Amino acid sequence: MSDRPKYVYDFEEGDGGDKRLLGGKGANLCEMTRIGLNVPPGFVITTEACLAYLADPERRLPPGLMDEVREHIRRLEAKTGKGFGDPANPLLVSVRSGSAISMPGMMDTILNLGLNAETLQGLIRQTGNPRFAYDAWRRFIQLFGKVALKVPDELFDERFEAIKARVGARSDLDLGADELAEAAEAFLEVVRAHTGRPFPADVHAQLEAAVRAVFDSWMGKRAVDYRREFHITPDIANGTAVNVVAMVFGNMGEDSCTGVAFTRDPATGENRLFGEYLVNAQGEDVVAGIRTPKPIQEMAQEMPDIYRQLLELRERLERHYREVQDFEFTVERGVLYCLQTRNGKMNAPAMVRTSVEMEREGLIDRRQALLRIRPEHLEQLLFPRLDPGFRGRPLATGLPASPGAASGRIVFDADTAEARGRLGEKVILVRVETKPEDIHGFFAAQGILTSRGGKTSHAAVVARGMGKPCVAGAEGIRVDEAARVAVVGETVLREGDVITIDGSTGHVYAGEAPMVEPEFTGDLATLLGWADEVARLGVRANADTPADAERALRFGAQGIGLCRTERMFNDPARLPVVVDMILAETPEARAAALERLLPMQREDFYRIFKVMAPRPVTVRLLDPPIHEFLPREEELVREIEALRHLRETLAGLAVLGQALPAEGAGAEAARALASLQGQTVEQALARKEGMLAKVRELREVNPMLGHRGVRLGITYPEIYRMQIRAVLEAAARCVQEGIAVDPEIMVPQVCTAKELEYVRAYVDEIHAEVEREAGVKVPFRFGTMIEVVRACMRAGRLAEVAEFFSFGTNDLSQATFSFSREDAENKFLPLYNEKGILQDNPFEVLDVHGVGRLMQITVEWGRRSRPDLKVGICGEQGGHPESIRFCHHIGLDYVSCSAPRVPIARLAAAHARLREDEYRFD
Amino acid sequence: MSDRPKYVYDFEEGDGGDKRLLGGKGANLCEMTRIGLNVPPGFVITTEACLAYLADPERRLPPGLMDEVREHIRRLEAKTGKGFGDPANPLLVSVRSGSAISMPGMMDTILNLGLNAETLQGLIRQTGNPRFAYDAWRRFIQLFGKVALKVPDELFDERFEAIKARVGARSDLDLGADELAEAAEAFLEVVRAHTGRPFPADVHAQLEAAVRAVFDSWMGKRAVDYRREFHITPDIANGTAVNVVAMVFGNMGEDSCTGVAFTRDPATGENRLFGEYLVNAQGEDVVAGIRTPKPIQEMAQEMPDIYRQLLELRERLERHYREVQDFEFTVERGVLYCLQTRNGKMNAPAMVRTSVEMEREGLIDRRQALLRIRPEHLEQLLFPRLDPGFRGRPLATGLPASPGAASGRIVFDADTAEARGRLGEKVILVRVETKPEDIHGFFAAQGILTSRGGKTSHAAVVARGMGKPCVAGAEGIRVDEAARVAVVGETVLREGDVITIDGSTGHVYAGEAPMVEPEFTGDLATLLGWADEVARLGVRANADTPADAERALRFGAQGIGLCRTERMFNDPARLPVVVDMILAETPEARAAALERLLPMQREDFYRIFKVMAPRPVTVRLLDPPIHEFLPREEELVREIEALRHLRETLAGLAVLGQALPAEGAGAEAARALASLQGQTVEQALARKEGMLAKVRELREVNPMLGHRGVRLGITYPEIYRMQIRAVLEAAARCVQEGIAVDPEIMVPQVCTAKELEYVRAYVDEIHAEVEREAGVKVPFRFGTMIEVVRACMRAGRLAEVAEFFSFGTNDLSQATFSFSREDAENKFLPLYNEKGILQDNPFEVLDVHGVGRLMQITVEWGRRSRPDLKVGICGEQGGHPESIRFCHHIGLDYVSCSAPRVPIARLAAAHARLREDEYRFD
Repeated sequence: MSDRPKYVYDFEEGDGGDKRLLGGKGANLCEMTRIGLNVPPGFVITTEACLAYLADPERRLPPGLMDEVREHIRRLEAKTGKGFGDPANPLLVSVRSGSAISMPGMMDTILNLGLNAETLQGLIRQTGNPRFAYDAWRRFIQLFGKVALKVPDELFDERFEAIKARVGARSDLDLGADELAEAAEAFLEVVRAHTGRPFPADVHAQLEAAVRAVFDSWMGKRAVDYRREFHITPDIANGTAVNVVAMVFGNMGEDSCTGVAFTRDPATGENRLFGEYLVNAQGEDVVAGIRTPKPIQEMAQEMPDIYRQLLELRERLERHYREVQDFEFTVERGVLYCLQTRNGKMNAPAMVRTSVEMEREGLIDRRQALLRIRPEHLEQLLFPRLDPGFRGRPLATGLPASPGAASGRIVFDADTAEARGRLGEKVILVRVETKPEDIHGFFAAQGILTSRGGKTSHAAVVARGMGKPCVAGAEGIRVDEAARVAVVGETVLREGDVITIDGSTGHVYAGEAPMVEPEFTGDLATLLGWADEVARLGVRANADTPADAERALRFGAQGIGLCRTERMFNDPARLPVVVDMILAETPEARAAALERLLPMQREDFYRIFKVMAPRPVTVRLLDPPIHEFLPREEELVREIEALRHLRETLAGLAVLGQALPAEGAGAEAARALASLQGQTVEQALARKEGMLAKVRELREVNPMLGHRGVRLGITYPEIYRMQIRAVLEAAARCVQEGIAVDPEIMVPQVCTAKELEYVRAYVDEIHAEVEREAGVKVPFRFGTMIEVVRACMRAGRLAEVAEFFSFGTNDLSQATFSFSREDAENKFLPLYNEKGILQDNPFEVLDVHGVGRLMQITVEWGRRSRPDLKVGICGEQGGHPESIRFCHHIGLDYVSCSAPRVPIARLAAAHARLREDEYRFD
Repeated sequence: MSDRPKYVYDFEEGDGGDKRLLGGKGANLCEMTRIGLNVPPGFVITTEACLAYLADPERRLPPGLMDEVREHIRRLEAKTGKGFGDPANPLLVSVRSGSAISMPGMMDTILNLGLNAETLQGLIRQTGNPRFAYDAWRRFIQLFGKVALKVPDELFDERFEAIKARVGARSDLDLGADELAEAAEAFLEVVRAHTGRPFPADVHAQLEAAVRAVFDSWMGKRAVDYRREFHITPDIANGTAVNVVAMVFGNMGEDSCTGVAFTRDPATGENRLFGEYLVNAQGEDVVAGIRTPKPIQEMAQEMPDIYRQLLELRERLERHYREVQDFEFTVERGVLYCLQTRNGKMNAPAMVRTSVEMEREGLIDRRQALLRIRPEHLEQLLFPRLDPGFRGRPLATGLPASPGAASGRIVFDADTAEARGRLGEKVILVRVETKPEDIHGFFAAQGILTSRGGKTSHAAVVARGMGKPCVAGAEGIRVDEAARVAVVGETVLREGDVITIDGSTGHVYAGEAPMVEPEFTGDLATLLGWADEVARLGVRANADTPADAERALRFGAQGIGLCRTERMFNDPARLPVVVDMILAETPEARAAALERLLPMQREDFYRIFKVMAPRPVTVRLLDPPIHEFLPREEELVREIEALRHLRETLAGLAVLGQALPAEGAGAEAARALASLQGQTVEQALARKEGMLAKVRELREVNPMLGHRGVRLGITYPEIYRMQIRAVLEAAARCVQEGIAVDPEIMVPQVCTAKELEYVRAYVDEIHAEVEREAGVKVPFRFGTMIEVVRACMRAGRLAEVAEFFSFGTNDLSQATFSFSREDAENKFLPLYNEKGILQDNPFEVLDVHGVGRLMQITVEWGRRSRPDLKVGICGEQGGHPESIRFCHHIGLDYVSCSAPRVPIARLAAAHARLREDEYRFD
């Protein structure tokens, strides 16, 4: 044997941990054998043998390999008491591929090898089932013919179809033993005709050909493509092993059966054996669905001994694998074989329950309990969702912009949404796109559907923030807001029609679909409590209103990482005052409007602080360009035209001395008059014209890079001063009332420390005034968003002024890529993803190599000048597990995300801590 | 004396280099004294004395200071032979402030100190001029009263005006000795009434009060504001010195005079004494312009001995200061005093000439010859400019968008500009704003004037690139392109009217203004040759056409750092083909259009390579979003409406069986038909409608961050492939013709190495084809723009693919600041500059702390993975001296700028090298 490596391992010999050498399946079979499970005997030919074979230009099997195989066949014969090629008691084997990584369907498998004209008769005797034996025989010929002899599959299919046609069989099941025997004969002819040789009767020749075929399939086009597609490089998996396993049959009589089972219920997590079985049947029968399998519990009556063995097997599997197992078994003449086991796939509730219970049972520790659940998996627990059993046909599909599902009556504008919603009606707000002034409609609606806009459109962002389902950019739907219809192909949806939207898939359904409510069970709370103990990274929520804050708290947020003050401006009661402020011609007029907003914002902050006490609340001063608070230009132009028309109509009537007629144009004018809310036509016209002029004045070429954030705060100091005062006065009131308060004032869009110093001067001045007026000490922290690249480069300098940083990775990613998200997602980003130029959408998953690198530099430089600098992230990526892992790696203090993602982030933060040693970032 | 510092220095004692201690003026007087010039004697009280005084809460003069001063006054008496307070032969002194940094007019000065009722009589005797003496006396009382005694100036003015009114004097000059004496008496009364004490007669008391007053003026509001405004911090200048100098008088008779002179002619640089003088006069007389001074050369006849002394003085000054000096002198009774000298301010031609000549004379070395000229100073040499003597009143003022001046007839569109320009007429293209399709108008025009847009508007950028004068955003002018008039207030300018624009100031004048041509003299060439020898940084030009390239070469460019291929697309002969390409519905149709563009681009590149041989030419593949090649949406809507109207008109006429009437709507229709260039109305309409649909499809929210650069190159590979082929085929032709060629293919807007690899694959494929077809080896280099922040973060990875980097700092600065340049310059940037939040406009001057830091990281990481990586900059800042200094510091290989800035950049590159040891960048 000299130094030739050992190429073949019996299952008893192989190292169950060595997937590289034995392949995943081979290692699994060895492992099961090693722990004493009754696995059908067999052996593994190593990947090394495969590589040696493939390395040979003439594709010769490595010298001695087949000798070694024959030796192991002999041992197999001894174990099974059957003979390979023995017509009396034939040993049949399966020959299966299996590389280190599972590549389902990519490589070849041959079953029932060892059959020939003689052993076929032995099989008939063994099973007492000629139909089964002929079926196995014709299948073996076809499979072997195709895989090992390269006979085109169609040649067999043609012959088979001819036989079926002749006897009028609709499916294979309609064929009897005779027809199958005939088919086998025909297939043997096909092989002979195509290869020029008879089908190999020698079972060893069959085996050698099968081994070669499996080896060859590693370099087959399908497999190579698959490896390229999924980036399976040789360091991950190299070559395939070959598993040769004695066939066992569950259809050898009433004392045989076959089944699949989970060690716990995969739908609920309940700790009991769960599964199905079929007596006197093969695994294929279960799959084919010819007979209905019985629930495993019935076996307790029917086959009590086997059932007891199964319960024992369940115990052993869980004790060994310390994970819920999904296993296959076959009972051949009263003997239970375990054919395969793997970790059970479960839904999220089951994962959570089993984690908590297995920890309590001492099967796993908390670390394992946390790590076995993928954080994203929790998502399905956190929103109402369509009943998984629902099979409706979607009417249209848009972008899945905010997860969860909702049903309701269609409304085409926010006012109607509010009016109908206030009456308790469930409505879905359907618009071409939404604007900030639609915000009251969002509050009132169950969900939002737009026909235009991407995942970052106003509708999507606001809906996600509120945790409401949203389908955005459903371009197949033509929304006509004026006509109050939405048209999809032939279907016309009218206001009041019921639809269901699924923001997790983007599907839109007509009518109401069955829904499942979110489950925030005690087990989930327990698990997340463990996560919080482990995590170093804190998790906060983005929340803009007292209601948001309450919700965030329910989801376990440790504070508010981003409270966007502009959301408060969009309240329909306030928007007119905001518009007054924008239209103000002088600082004084602007101050007067702000004076009216101050008590409203102060009240908001007070209530938010109270809810969150004593947790930190980060308030971001006004960020968006102010034109976002004004209607769109086209809308104003239309309204102004309508008002002018109304004026003319009224003037005409006045000349004629007539009243408004009740119908036609008169009715229209009357409606328009009603909407003036006490203003004269002239007043309304003047205001709208003022707004139009302002909208035009404020127009920007690149609004993303425009006059916003701190730039506004410096050009219109009154706005920021009002907001700062509102925060500090609200905090003062809390202090007076004995409520612990931890407010953080955050400045957006900062690019230079001078800006921060400018705003800090306002804060210090107002803070001194507020403390004097209130007579109490008012705590606060002052910090900056980091969302402009220059702020990253100036982190050291900014940290001299800022006590905390919060990465705004939405804007920072846009600036780093020079991608406008709305444009990119509509124009070139899909192509970039398709061509693999970018792996992910950087607006969903943090781009660690670009944006992340910038963040890392920023944290380092910032802490160099202020070692206790607090650093967080409040961009959308802050709720994404992989991004959270990176944030942990670079030493952030917390992530902040939308409330429904808080549990996901909490688990991800624990994972990041538990797996920090594995993390690699060049 | 113990360890009390010495507070007072005679001019003989002081260290002429110690401006910190002695102030600038004091140190200068000491220096002149030290080198033996006849300076009026005097002494300096140090800034240390000032600081000690200011540090005392009770503002006491430091102990012993006045004793020291008295001692120095005694020495002064000895030197002058006069007595301080001596009625027989009074010593008068001036008391002047002087800090380390000149702060003109910010602190106080007192002249003629030492006058009182007695010494006044002595002065009358000394001068024989009672009017002068009384004038000096009343001035001294007022100045001393105001500065030292804090008497409000108006009290003196009132009394003085009363006297003038009484005698009917229109100016001070109409007053005689008697009235001035009366005024002095009145002023003494004012002082007594206001202060409650008589005017101090004791000259030592006068001196002490004057010293205190000067010290106090350092903390005066004016001075404090000035220091804050100009960032004069204590480390730069701290406290003021006091200079006490014996007064000398040039008005003591015909053997006295006063004058100012330059050691060389400041207008031409000619090496001869240049200046003016007045006999029997004081310096004030020269300033007041009562008498016309004589050219200094006349003194050779009138005062030959003094003239000889002046020539000697000139020699000594230049030998000592090794710089052209601007000095003041006074001759008192035949004795020449040098009162002050400083480096002479000269225009650029004079600076260049004197640099070269002084080097040849051995006065300075080449290093000094280069360093004494500020690079920006050369700018006035490089464009035609308004005659400096021109004093016209501007009609309107816009932004100085591209330097230089031009006169010409107004044209309102590019076609007219081309038509009239082709006939040799000088035209100025006047538009609301310009678009790429106006490019032929730019070529034909002398200059461009727009009423809308900033310094980065299309007009500004293109004009700067071409080196043509441009005034942009002259909002005072209402341009009505349709009516073909431009209205400024009452003035109506029509097509054909002549105007002059000055792109260096933004002024617009009616009519033709006198102009001065650029001088590219032999001295400039010599100087820049020296600069090239010294510089480590290369200087290339941005040039888009063969004509540009020729021009760049004339300005001394060492290559082309940025050749923008889109400029070639805008040629009016090509634009329709480009539009065909954009409107193409299939890759095939697009390929057909590109097939027509290929030979045109190839020819351009061939000619450019030929001009520049053997220098490198960096060709940037298409960068702007393609909608920039289409007309604006509103324009298309208007044109489509007009075409529809035309169609109806024609249809109406057809029905009536009539021909087009020659007048009215018919004439209009005829004109419209003429512009269809062979298309039918239907064809033209279809095309315009197609363009409109495309414009709407391509519309982007943030075009700056949109679908452009390599993103286009990947979504429409045909475009880049055509351009790459054009470059390589042109290069191949050069090689075939024996022309040395060094083409560099540059990819814009790259954010990930995958994009580069994608384009590189096109290049390799096409390169192999071209070499095969041409049968020659075709050299080329492949590289990337660095203008996306992510590219900076991925520099190491990009350098694996790119052989060179070129920083596109226009876009990079926008992305780093998250400023849209157009929006920022119109909205908040002026306020930011005004408030000192940003010192400069980052689009003009490289922001070294933000953008620069990114660049530094990029260079470092890039070179780490490719040590010989070539790195340049081709943004606008590449022509800015301070930015060039930074580029040198971080080790760039070259800068590239618009051709007219090449000489400036060459000098700046030399400066950067010569001063690299001084450069500090945290």
